[in-house]
Amino acid sequence: QDPAQMEPASVSVSAVLPAGGSGERLGGATPKQFCAVQGRPLVSYAVRAMERISWISDIIVVVSPENIEKMKTIIAKYGHKRVTVVEGGITRHRSIFNGLKVFAEKEFSSHLLQKPEVVIIHDAVRPFVEEDILSKVVMAAKEHGAAGAIRPLVSTVIASAADGCLDHSLERARYRASEMPQAFLFDIIYEAYQQCTDYDLDYGTECLHLALKYCKTNAKLVEGTADLWKVTYKRDLYAAESIIKDNLSQEVCVITDANETVAQVGFLLPESLKSQIKVEAVSTSQSKNDSHLQSIFSGQCYNFVCVNDKKCAIQETQQLVHMLEKSDIPLLYPVVLISVYLDISGNKSFSIGMEELTSFKKFARETKKKNILVYGLLIQYK
Amino acid sequence: QDPAQMEPASVSVSAVLPAGGSGERLGGATPKQFCAVQGRPLVSYAVRAMERISWISDIIVVVSPENIEKMKTIIAKYGHKRVTVVEGGITRHRSIFNGLKVFAEKEFSSHLLQKPEVVIIHDAVRPFVEEDILSKVVMAAKEHGAAGAIRPLVSTVIASAADGCLDHSLERARYRASEMPQAFLFDIIYEAYQQCTDYDLDYGTECLHLALKYCKTNAKLVEGTADLWKVTYKRDLYAAESIIKDNLSQEVCVITDANETVAQVGFLLPESLKSQIKVEAVSTSQSKNDSHLQSIFSGQCYNFVCVNDKKCAIQETQQLVHMLEKSDIPLLYPVVLISVYLDISGNKSFSIGMEELTSFKKFARETKKKNILVYGLLIQYK
Repeated sequence: QDPAQMEPASVSVSAVLPAGGSGERLGGATPKQFCAVQGRPLVSYAVRAMERISWISDIIVVVSPENIEKMKTIIAKYGHKRVTVVEGGITRHRSIFNGLKVFAEKEFSSHLLQKPEVVIIHDAVRPFVEEDILSKVVMAAKEHGAAGAIRPLVSTVIASAADGCLDHSLERARYRASEMPQAFLFDIIYEAYQQCTDYDLDYGTECLHLALKYCKTNAKLVEGTADLWKVTYKRDLYAAESIIKDNLSQEVCVITDANETVAQVGFLLPESLKSQIKVEAVSTSQSKNDSHLQSIFSGQCYNFVCVNDKKCAIQETQQLVHMLEKSDIPLLYPVVLISVYLDISGNKSFSIGMEELTSFKKFARETKKKNILVYGLLIQYK
Repeated sequence: QDPAQMEPASVSVSAVLPAGGSGERLGGATPKQFCAVQGRPLVSYAVRAMERISWISDIIVVVSPENIEKMKTIIAKYGHKRVTVVEGGITRHRSIFNGLKVFAEKEFSSHLLQKPEVVIIHDAVRPFVEEDILSKVVMAAKEHGAAGAIRPLVSTVIASAADGCLDHSLERARYRASEMPQAFLFDIIYEAYQQCTDYDLDYGTECLHLALKYCKTNAKLVEGTADLWKVTYKRDLYAAESIIKDNLSQEVCVITDANETVAQVGFLLPESLKSQIKVEAVSTSQSKNDSHLQSIFSGQCYNFVCVNDKKCAIQETQQLVHMLEKSDIPLLYPVVLISVYLDISGNKSFSIGMEELTSFKKFARETKKKNILVYGLLIQYK
């Protein structure tokens, strides 16, 4: 799909992520939004999913008072941008309401944020939201006032009678599970929360219902993908990990510099990889071919093998990472970058300085936070 | 809980497991019930979960015609008992109906099985069903005619209008997700299927609904555990794996024979393990203490370390495995058995014959099918 088509034209959009839950159902001490998947807290995935969308202005993360510092640390560690942390209330609805207030009530925030036309509401524990569905709910919200993602029901839903027996089963085809993301014209959902009774703020079902009850707005329902499910139980953390692994790119770009021997390796490697993975080979020096690499980045070829015989391998690698960061590709899933230093000098012993190794390791640690996994490989070839 | 209390007294019980699904939502060529989790097909876990319950007589697995041979191979490979494979119909209801017919219609089965008073219906793709919930639904079915496990709703359920917009949200607290296992007085569910219209056989929601519609039986609803969820998407296979890992026992029993040096190791090992895991030590020869080991088996101490200095380590291990199998402990989750052969002879070189090694490996492969993981360890001590 053409990204230009997905961008909601001429509408300002911001997002509120309630992340105040206690995660009782997970059965652990750590609330699920702070549980690590592949070493990174779940909430960081959800924030990343929002922040890679260029047309989302502000991202409000609402957390319980005791987790404000923890959230700020996560934002600093993973270099998240455009994020404001807001203190939540005692229920989900009160937390969302607090999140909305930073756009509307001066006394609530040190600096009032620009009120968006449409606000997205999305859970911190649904890390895999794609631009496509976000765009769809935003455009539907602009037209209908409210919109939300739905999924088919996995189980039959039943109503129980007072005696604990079956009263009736719902006809499965008529009903849907209401999922996230949802989007609203800001004025509608804010009005709904202002009108909202204390009972609804404490026990109310969900935002779509509030928009209907208090603003007579029938939300547009948008069919979402299976990955939108909510991380609820401990097993869901493993499921989340499996999705990240599934989304690792199956394409690799091999980059080699102009040296003849190295270029030959750069030619043989793609040949032998071809049977297992889709391979793109760039045989000239990367610095001379910036625009070609740029087109590979935007074509979503996520993994790279750089082969060179220079001592300054780290600089070449840093340069590539820098170009990756500058480009607009959405790094929700890890990019693997293998830097191969090929020694063809034939010297029996050679060494890479401890200092260089340390700085390479440090560099790899930093890029990991940006979802770029850098590995170094030293090959002695005679 | 006392196992005797869980046993449904004076009621004959059999089970039907529909396993005919095509697994479209999983997005793979293999139907999900045949997908491997930790090397074993999902359906084998579900069968094992049933067959370890002593009061369940027959287990009927209903599969589509093209998978009958595959299912029979699985039964042979994992040594499942009391299982009859039946050919399914084109829908889930038609498959369950076929499964019930082997208890009632002579022409349908080469040998008519004994009709049970209560029949359990459980999905092949819900591998983690415990005796407790099975017992509860059976006893409730005996009293009410029908019963089924339920879970709280994870998402809000909504009804959509014809224009694809929200019509209304259901009040979450009033509704439940209907899960498995379910149980029925055989005569009630069989009557319901006989009365059932073709439309309901093809599109009907679920068994509880059929019992209500055709036999006016309001099923008793029984709150189940989170593990009862249905493996639906690919990510659920990873989730299933995580549950198996979580259920590995955190207790170990160290068994040592009477030799002084070995017994000393048998004393030191529990001491050093104590900080990490719950340890039970049996310091006398196992053969002399059958009843003590038996009580450990029934106490669900699942992992064993056997230390001895005999050349016939394999026989001791085989003996223990045999005792494990004879005992009534439900091996749904793996038991780990480490056989340590401690060499204290001080000889510089010693050998274990290739033949013995091969037979040990073969033995380990066989026991793995029974969920007993046998490892051998050779330690030379000077």
